[in-house]
Amino acid sequence: MNNAIDLNSDLGEGFGMWPLTDDDALLDIVTSANVACGFHAGDPSVLRKVTERAAERGVVIGAQVGYRDLAGFGRRFIDMDPHELVNDVIYQIGALEGFAKIAGTRVRYVKPHGALYNAVVHHAEQAAAVVDAVKRYDPELPILGLPGSELLRQTEAEGLTGVQEAFADRAYTPEGRLVSRRLPGAVVHEPGEVVRRSVRMATEGTVVATDGSSVAAAPRSLCVHGDTAGAVEIARSVRQGLVDAGVELRAFA
Amino acid sequence: MNNAIDLNSDLGEGFGMWPLTDDDALLDIVTSANVACGFHAGDPSVLRKVTERAAERGVVIGAQVGYRDLAGFGRRFIDMDPHELVNDVIYQIGALEGFAKIAGTRVRYVKPHGALYNAVVHHAEQAAAVVDAVKRYDPELPILGLPGSELLRQTEAEGLTGVQEAFADRAYTPEGRLVSRRLPGAVVHEPGEVVRRSVRMATEGTVVATDGSSVAAAPRSLCVHGDTAGAVEIARSVRQGLVDAGVELRAFA
Amino acid sequence: MNNAIDLNSDLGEGFGMWPLTDDDALLDIVTSANVACGFHAGDPSVLRKVTERAAERGVVIGAQVGYRDLAGFGRRFIDMDPHELVNDVIYQIGALEGFAKIAGTRVRYVKPHGALYNAVVHHAEQAAAVVDAVKRYDPELPILGLPGSELLRQTEAEGLTGVQEAFADRAYTPEGRLVSRRLPGAVVHEPGEVVRRSVRMATEGTVVATDGSSVAAAPRSLCVHGDTAGAVEIARSVRQGLVDAGVELRAFA
Amino acid sequence: MNNAIDLNSDLGEGFGMWPLTDDDALLDIVTSANVACGFHAGDPSVLRKVTERAAERGVVIGAQVGYRDLAGFGRRFIDMDPHELVNDVIYQIGALEGFAKIAGTRVRYVKPHGALYNAVVHHAEQAAAVVDAVKRYDPELPILGLPGSELLRQTEAEGLTGVQEAFADRAYTPEGRLVSRRLPGAVVHEPGEVVRRSVRMATEGTVVATDGSSVAAAPRSLCVHGDTAGAVEIARSVRQGLVDAGVELRAFA
Repeated sequence: MNNAIDLNSDLGEGFGMWPLTDDDALLDIVTSANVACGFHAGDPSVLRKVTERAAERGVVIGAQVGYRDLAGFGRRFIDMDPHELVNDVIYQIGALEGFAKIAGTRVRYVKPHGALYNAVVHHAEQAAAVVDAVKRYDPELPILGLPGSELLRQTEAEGLTGVQEAFADRAYTPEGRLVSRRLPGAVVHEPGEVVRRSVRMATEGTVVATDGSSVAAAPRSLCVHGDTAGAVEIARSVRQGLVDAGVELRAFA
Repeated sequence: MNNAIDLNSDLGEGFGMWPLTDDDALLDIVTSANVACGFHAGDPSVLRKVTERAAERGVVIGAQVGYRDLAGFGRRFIDMDPHELVNDVIYQIGALEGFAKIAGTRVRYVKPHGALYNAVVHHAEQAAAVVDAVKRYDPELPILGLPGSELLRQTEAEGLTGVQEAFADRAYTPEGRLVSRRLPGAVVHEPGEVVRRSVRMATEGTVVATDGSSVAAAPRSLCVHGDTAGAVEIARSVRQGLVDAGVELRAFA
Repeated sequence: MNNAIDLNSDLGEGFGMWPLTDDDALLDIVTSANVACGFHAGDPSVLRKVTERAAERGVVIGAQVGYRDLAGFGRRFIDMDPHELVNDVIYQIGALEGFAKIAGTRVRYVKPHGALYNAVVHHAEQAAAVVDAVKRYDPELPILGLPGSELLRQTEAEGLTGVQEAFADRAYTPEGRLVSRRLPGAVVHEPGEVVRRSVRMATEGTVVATDGSSVAAAPRSLCVHGDTAGAVEIARSVRQGLVDAGVELRAFA
Repeated sequence: MNNAIDLNSDLGEGFGMWPLTDDDALLDIVTSANVACGFHAGDPSVLRKVTERAAERGVVIGAQVGYRDLAGFGRRFIDMDPHELVNDVIYQIGALEGFAKIAGTRVRYVKPHGALYNAVVHHAEQAAAVVDAVKRYDPELPILGLPGSELLRQTEAEGLTGVQEAFADRAYTPEGRLVSRRLPGAVVHEPGEVVRRSVRMATEGTVVATDGSSVAAAPRSLCVHGDTAGAVEIARSVRQGLVDAGVELRAFA
């Protein structure tokens, strides 16, 4: 049972003329901001604005690193050389760090984005590349990822800090894994249900699986979405629900 | 008369499959490496390799910041919003800093590249943007530029350190300005002459202008080129000529 | 006095995850679609969808060619080599033509976008580059541009067809030029006023200038905007106003 | 046994400041030019130059389509939505067609590049996407690929023309497949041996496999490389060897 939980969300995912995430709204909701670093989204002016505002509000800044693929928004697996992936991750952390620095703060964690996030659940070489990049850059930086993932396994094997996250709006199997998005019922859409699941994870450390059983899910961080107006509204409700349940909202980094 | 001079050159200007500068050769010649940061050239793996090797050899690393224009190699003026230019410069310095950091060193100066270099000779708003970026990022970082440029004027007006560079292979007017590349004779091609001019600038602080007069040219840094095999050879001769003349090769940062 | 006028608008200006223009709504309003070609906006899947739907509805397809600048949305002047601009324009027309072809139609005109549109009002070399590209690609293709522009002057000097457009929501000087966007009152925001000006241009060939005088403005095409919900609504009103005034909406190409 | 064979090579693979393939030399050697279309390499000015020179010399132009990945040169598999791949292929063919058109010719075939070439040997959905793109664009265009590939199987199943190619410098298994590049001996480096294998394939329709056996290899086209000076020299020798052996060099399209 947790006394405190972190709320994280993806921010800074606009590019040039094209806005996407409602960064201002999200910064009033989350305790950790996964800021896009320019490879899948996020031009320098977006990064500047998000990091400054996050710093002003005390929201912790993380580097949301992804494949170099603006056209695919980082949502397409790229079978790249792991040695190059190490460097792509370092580049992105460094670029974001520049803005964190001028905002008087620092990049405090790393979270892979999109297809890279999914790849490093199983892809040992790419997981190792992300861990290697963080270890070289700053071994004190936690890595945020999926419980049971190859990424978190290697993170800990290398002596770094892995942080587990859960998704309040995703269905879980009786084994405690996420139901694939390709299956019906993978995403919970009803706002009240999303809030109830969030509170249960934060206060009881469990989630109701697809078969009605209760499985362990005691994440240090809950991921909420902000790429539609409806998503922001649900994220706000999750925050309020947690506060009402006496859960402390506290960043992990 | 200088006792010491810096030799700088552009490095890391390959991208993906496409090599360009002979970085290994240049790192044996120069004392300061202007490393491309990914906007006009330089993918993350190039940056990694150049910064590591520069660090190993004690060559000082500078951020060679440019317009976001891979197709034009940063050689085309872009009339961009100065507020966005500030952020583009910060992004590039930060990205390179990530690699400098893992190589155990730091970015120690900033030099604009290509069309941006030329723009900030006269363009007050873009010059101000570069200076603002450096000031916000780290006011201790020197900015390398053209003597008499708006960039160096503003650098000093803002209390930052401006460093003057000269070009051993460029002709100068009797007023001490560079002869435009559009005019015949703008570039000195004869290797021996390039070496003689370099030594004269370093030891006497003068250069022979197009009318035969001697004009002041006492740069803290000499820029040599490395984008062709011939250029690397000339750069090597310049280094040897300076050493033979008793000039100390010493980075400015 | 015109019996017929064309309505054109920029379409296909999304990119990847990022939508922008409400293409479906606009295709019910306009007679000519200026489709982005991938350099300032418009990924291939956007082009496919827009060209197919335009073809289904009988909307004429034009190539909206711009600078290669996704980060700047083509709104930043790039001082590029005119010889390269010729090729960038050909590339974009060809790419769009591929989709027009599979939709059973053709690219029927060319219109420069954003900063290129503004540049070729005065910039003779870049205007010549656009004209040269179109002349080489297909000298039968009309070029849509600003009355009095260098672009249209050269278009006609080369024996190509220039088509004049006007903006119903822009203020005009007593000399019949657009009031600079940097000046107050440059844009007419009141929807009813935009409609009245449109009808007046279409039926009387005049517009009321900033000093209250009536100046000639008899465009073959009216440009309406579609990058906000409000803009689409105004565009729809302009269409309805023209229809109600007995003006035939007819593409020029 | 063939009386005629085609020689194809990848051309136009520079980008901006970065040259790569020696296009002029190759255009004197090959009968078919696989021209990069801008997604993995090839800026518009490169495409212009290569298509014009190919047209002048009677070399047939093919669209060498690849993943949108300049940083990876199209050599990294991207697990993209096949519907988007269809459109990426159409876009690239169309773009190149623009230059073929102004050079007075046409794109006459399509060949996937790099990781896409390798993917469509087995990846049914991506193979289908390439075939669908070509079928929609022009069902008369042949597709050049690997014998036994899913790509060629689907090409023919859809009623299009598949053209088989072989590699004179690659080792073959006794089953007639290419030896993986990850294995030693995958590439034949000795120029004389490359020429002998080429001639044997063209005149006898066989190649000596790794176990010394003779296996069928009667390609309509032989692929030669041109990304290094040595490669160009070998390609020239292959051409000469074929001519000396009385083989007619003739494009397939």
